[in-house]
Amino acid sequence: AIVQVLETFWAKSTTASLTGKQVLITAGPTQEPIDPVRYISNHSTGKMGYAIAAAFAQAGALVTLVSGPTSLPLPHPAIRRIDVRSAQDMFSATQAAFSQADITILNAAVADYTPAHPADQKIKKKEAQFAIELVKTVDIAASLGQQKREGQLMMGFALETNNERENALKKLHAKNLDWIVLNSLRDSGAGFGHDTNKITVIDRDEQVREFALKSKEDVAQDLLQIVLEKLGSQPALTV
Amino acid sequence: AIVQVLETFWAKSTTASLTGKQVLITAGPTQEPIDPVRYISNHSTGKMGYAIAAAFAQAGALVTLVSGPTSLPLPHPAIRRIDVRSAQDMFSATQAAFSQADITILNAAVADYTPAHPADQKIKKKEAQFAIELVKTVDIAASLGQQKREGQLMMGFALETNNERENALKKLHAKNLDWIVLNSLRDSGAGFGHDTNKITVIDRDEQVREFALKSKEDVAQDLLQIVLEKLGSQPALTV
Repeated sequence: AIVQVLETFWAKSTTASLTGKQVLITAGPTQEPIDPVRYISNHSTGKMGYAIAAAFAQAGALVTLVSGPTSLPLPHPAIRRIDVRSAQDMFSATQAAFSQADITILNAAVADYTPAHPADQKIKKKEAQFAIELVKTVDIAASLGQQKREGQLMMGFALETNNERENALKKLHAKNLDWIVLNSLRDSGAGFGHDTNKITVIDRDEQVREFALKSKEDVAQDLLQIVLEKLGSQPALTV
Repeated sequence: AIVQVLETFWAKSTTASLTGKQVLITAGPTQEPIDPVRYISNHSTGKMGYAIAAAFAQAGALVTLVSGPTSLPLPHPAIRRIDVRSAQDMFSATQAAFSQADITILNAAVADYTPAHPADQKIKKKEAQFAIELVKTVDIAASLGQQKREGQLMMGFALETNNERENALKKLHAKNLDWIVLNSLRDSGAGFGHDTNKITVIDRDEQVREFALKSKEDVAQDLLQIVLEKLGSQPALTV
């Protein structure tokens, strides 16, 4: 609690402020329908994204949280939450909110692939084996990256199991991000389902900052500080 | 609350008792891994199975609850819960508990198919499309039905979207069940994700009992009564 107070104080003492800033945050998994009862999803619980939303809301930002299916409560009363299910729904919701967003943080674990032909009826258990054909979903980060205007900031997340930094760097540039936050599945206690996380943040200049394993709330505070530093260094925002 | 009290009273006033009876209940969905982060699952929340477990535990039974991933708390302190993830895990857990079970209630929405070749590494988003090959999972109900001994009772669930009764009846006989409980996806307010359910119960003599839409807790009480009636009518159990 003392750490929280100090960090909040520090946040308020920087030159930059989040008051009046629109922040768009995505969180959680998506569910891609196979038929009316079955779907493809992933192990994201939404905890990291919800902690980020809470940190930014507490710092005075106007937060829109586009959330895939989670069992989490609204993390701060001032947050506007938009619930979505599929990657396509999440794409639509982020498209609608993006032009107003000063800062966009894409933390959701959006499905890369979705069933090509979801069935209207529950698929019966007959064949000994069959295959689900999948097609790529729209790349939300890449699409928003193309639309990004001067002054808009965008942070993406990467979860990699191999060639982590190399893949993360490619993603940073290909999607026109300002930062990429790398979660490693190799770090024990980090990532999906845990209350802690261990991140590495890489910016457009390929500066790398590694952080220690800490609670997702503390990771959210670190990310808030990174954004505040950047806002403080932008000429248009200094007084 | 008054209804609950009366029903509990009625349960206790029948000739049969659940005291000392072992009841095995499965609940929730399963998750079938595609790779370390992705899986196939279904919309079961586990609410119906957890309500059944609570009803039987409250009536004095020794309940083992084999549960797929849910966000639900333990519904009764006396329940022994075994957490599983995949259909294969659920099969192993039910196999281990079945021989001791006087009554088995298979409410879990177990995956019928699982990826044939789950990947060790997160699958990269490269190809525009690809297919996941699936193979049938072990049929838990059918396997337990074959092992069922004289005096063991078994209740299964069917969720159908078309030819509901016909499919449910086939399942009842093919899997050697004593009852099949039919949920219809057509009934609004019934099934996955709702707090209410509307069921039809069919027994081995193909007697059909339809129930009204009610809370999952009340549905659990109806199922408890059905089991108690059957126990009361079995010669070996009358005093």
